[in-house]
Amino acid sequence: MAQNYLDAIASDPTKMGWMKGFPPKKDSIISAIDGSFFEFPALRYSVCHMRQFFPSTVVRSAENNRFNFESALDKELDKVKFTPLGSKEDITWQESLMKVYTDGIIILHKGKIVYERYFGALKPNGVHTVMSVSKTFTGTLGALLIAEGVLVENKTAAEYVPELKSSAFGDATVRQILDMTTALQYSEDYADPNADVWIFSAAGNPFPKPPGYTGPQNYYEYLQTVKKSGNHGESFGYKTINTDAMGWIISRVTGKSIPELLSERIWEPLGTHVDGYYLVDGAGIAFAGGGLSANLRDLAMFGEMIRNNGFFNGKQILPSKVIDDIKVGGSQEAFEKAGYTNLKNWSYRNMWWITENENGAFSARGVHGQVIYIDPKAQMVIVRLASHPVAGNQANDPYSLPAYNALAKYFISKK
Amino acid sequence: MAQNYLDAIASDPTKMGWMKGFPPKKDSIISAIDGSFFEFPALRYSVCHMRQFFPSTVVRSAENNRFNFESALDKELDKVKFTPLGSKEDITWQESLMKVYTDGIIILHKGKIVYERYFGALKPNGVHTVMSVSKTFTGTLGALLIAEGVLVENKTAAEYVPELKSSAFGDATVRQILDMTTALQYSEDYADPNADVWIFSAAGNPFPKPPGYTGPQNYYEYLQTVKKSGNHGESFGYKTINTDAMGWIISRVTGKSIPELLSERIWEPLGTHVDGYYLVDGAGIAFAGGGLSANLRDLAMFGEMIRNNGFFNGKQILPSKVIDDIKVGGSQEAFEKAGYTNLKNWSYRNMWWITENENGAFSARGVHGQVIYIDPKAQMVIVRLASHPVAGNQANDPYSLPAYNALAKYFISKK
Repeated sequence: MAQNYLDAIASDPTKMGWMKGFPPKKDSIISAIDGSFFEFPALRYSVCHMRQFFPSTVVRSAENNRFNFESALDKELDKVKFTPLGSKEDITWQESLMKVYTDGIIILHKGKIVYERYFGALKPNGVHTVMSVSKTFTGTLGALLIAEGVLVENKTAAEYVPELKSSAFGDATVRQILDMTTALQYSEDYADPNADVWIFSAAGNPFPKPPGYTGPQNYYEYLQTVKKSGNHGESFGYKTINTDAMGWIISRVTGKSIPELLSERIWEPLGTHVDGYYLVDGAGIAFAGGGLSANLRDLAMFGEMIRNNGFFNGKQILPSKVIDDIKVGGSQEAFEKAGYTNLKNWSYRNMWWITENENGAFSARGVHGQVIYIDPKAQMVIVRLASHPVAGNQANDPYSLPAYNALAKYFISKK
Repeated sequence: MAQNYLDAIASDPTKMGWMKGFPPKKDSIISAIDGSFFEFPALRYSVCHMRQFFPSTVVRSAENNRFNFESALDKELDKVKFTPLGSKEDITWQESLMKVYTDGIIILHKGKIVYERYFGALKPNGVHTVMSVSKTFTGTLGALLIAEGVLVENKTAAEYVPELKSSAFGDATVRQILDMTTALQYSEDYADPNADVWIFSAAGNPFPKPPGYTGPQNYYEYLQTVKKSGNHGESFGYKTINTDAMGWIISRVTGKSIPELLSERIWEPLGTHVDGYYLVDGAGIAFAGGGLSANLRDLAMFGEMIRNNGFFNGKQILPSKVIDDIKVGGSQEAFEKAGYTNLKNWSYRNMWWITENENGAFSARGVHGQVIYIDPKAQMVIVRLASHPVAGNQANDPYSLPAYNALAKYFISKK
């Protein structure tokens, strides 16, 4: 945190000229091979161009009945003030946008667009990686399949995917996986070069494995190697591989990939306009835990559908009991053990982050500042795509969480 | 040609189960790394899933004013008979489809869909690689820029792209490059492991270069190394790298990549429905000579626009003089030197293949059976996507060229 980063204006990817020119200048070429694609400030370009670096597979948008938001832009929103966590000085909503390296933001109030801005490399018809917001889509599909009786929440992973039997997931229930209360011997500390996340990442890398590599060849081979550490069901442990295990279970019972299912059950009925995509591994398996890139307005459609208890674009897309089950939240006791200082009293359910605040707000969160934030009481949905230099939401939460509360208050007082 | 291949029914990629299952079985996994993605019969799956194996970049379809074809299906077409080249026995149009491993085919007559079929891995809303039909898009954009005065056909490549000065392209004119009458020391014999095409291919491969690799890092670095062999302007020599040199010139003068320009000038105005894409190299450069994947109906829109001298979907998309210049054809004398026995009297102009027949038919052609065939007199456009086992159109031309003539006769006699 002591590191000095270029600010949002200075690191603007368009000004920096990444991948610009024919051919681009050598020092403006970003590569997946040397890892430069995900180093700040290059990542500010990459977040909008992941498919240019990696193999991918489509999440088809709607061919028909495409939805168009009504607009009711509110210029007052820029002036809404709040006190960032750990600060004594108020800043405005507008000022906060650059603090969190916003690439795109939409605020919906009562289903209309009241605020919409694009920065950096994001265009209105473009896509942006949503990072771990991907998890929320997998979790929501999981909750949907439970509601439909296709999955039973107390059955174990091994009952659906026998290959997981000897792994830590073997005796974990669908519910424990969806709520990430599994006990896994797995470190996701990106700063530690020996962390398990790098073994997972190497398994899923679709590029040729290094000479002498003998590890797992794809995501699912990796999942089978994960060891248990403790008892399932006791603590919340935010570990991406839960989502990929969930993705495996979902694909096994439906016979469809996560991108196919997301398109069929959610993206097409929403009336989205822009094809999204998932990055895939060498076996064509979509990275359910973080591989989705999507369009900002399309994501707002999803958020608004959830706020409306599953009804959107003239139809009930998800049964309302799926959203009820998200809102109920997970175990706050289990969550507290994870020690998120900025997320006091929160819980985690169906791969959603539940604030447990008085407005009943809940959200999807992805590293570098991706968020879908739904405040039922304020009738507000916020979708933000960003490219914050720090790989952890503790860096932008101080400028985000109190801002959302201030906006919610503004809308509640307005109505 | 003596090799025995599975026929179209036996090699159906859906039946073969490529990449099917979660995870796919080991022997049904297709990979770009080991080259299996382009070996028959796996290639029958790959042609519809290139982005799943390689980095890619979007060719955006239309957001508004999307075109919908009228339909006037004609069941008689299946019964149209013709004599394949070198054969004595007539076969029907319907029988010919499997002979050439058709994945998708549309026939338009007077702008209406009279025939449409899907096979193999292709779905109506899917995409398929068009292989060297990509060249025709680059060539058409080049001709457009000449018509607009942005490019001058007698200026040399080096005048636009100084980096090409010491290469064979340096003193080649835009016209010579567009008509592929450049004299290049370059072999495109895929059967020869030492052919230049493999050096070009290695340069453009977006995966990590092998240890010790010291060759060019991307397509444009390769183009600068190409040596001259003979005099430009004398013979037609079908060499993919002409198209990539043309792509470089086009991007340099417009400041846009080929995918961006194709979308802006052609794909969006046509009213296409499905995003296409290009494969890209490690510097993000689109493979202008063969990297495009596109939707069948969208390709038919393009063909019909060309047949209508540039007018389509309520507007003049290309100036009619661009299409006039294609129809004029290239030098038949230069073409003859290339020795295509099935293409007697043909010529090549703006990266289109001109039959020079009495109907004034001309076409775009891509390896493994991709074609856009426009017969002005018969008011007919055919688009075929295919996955023929043999990497050369000499394998399907005997079942294609006389079939197109028979269909043309049918339509002419009908009207």
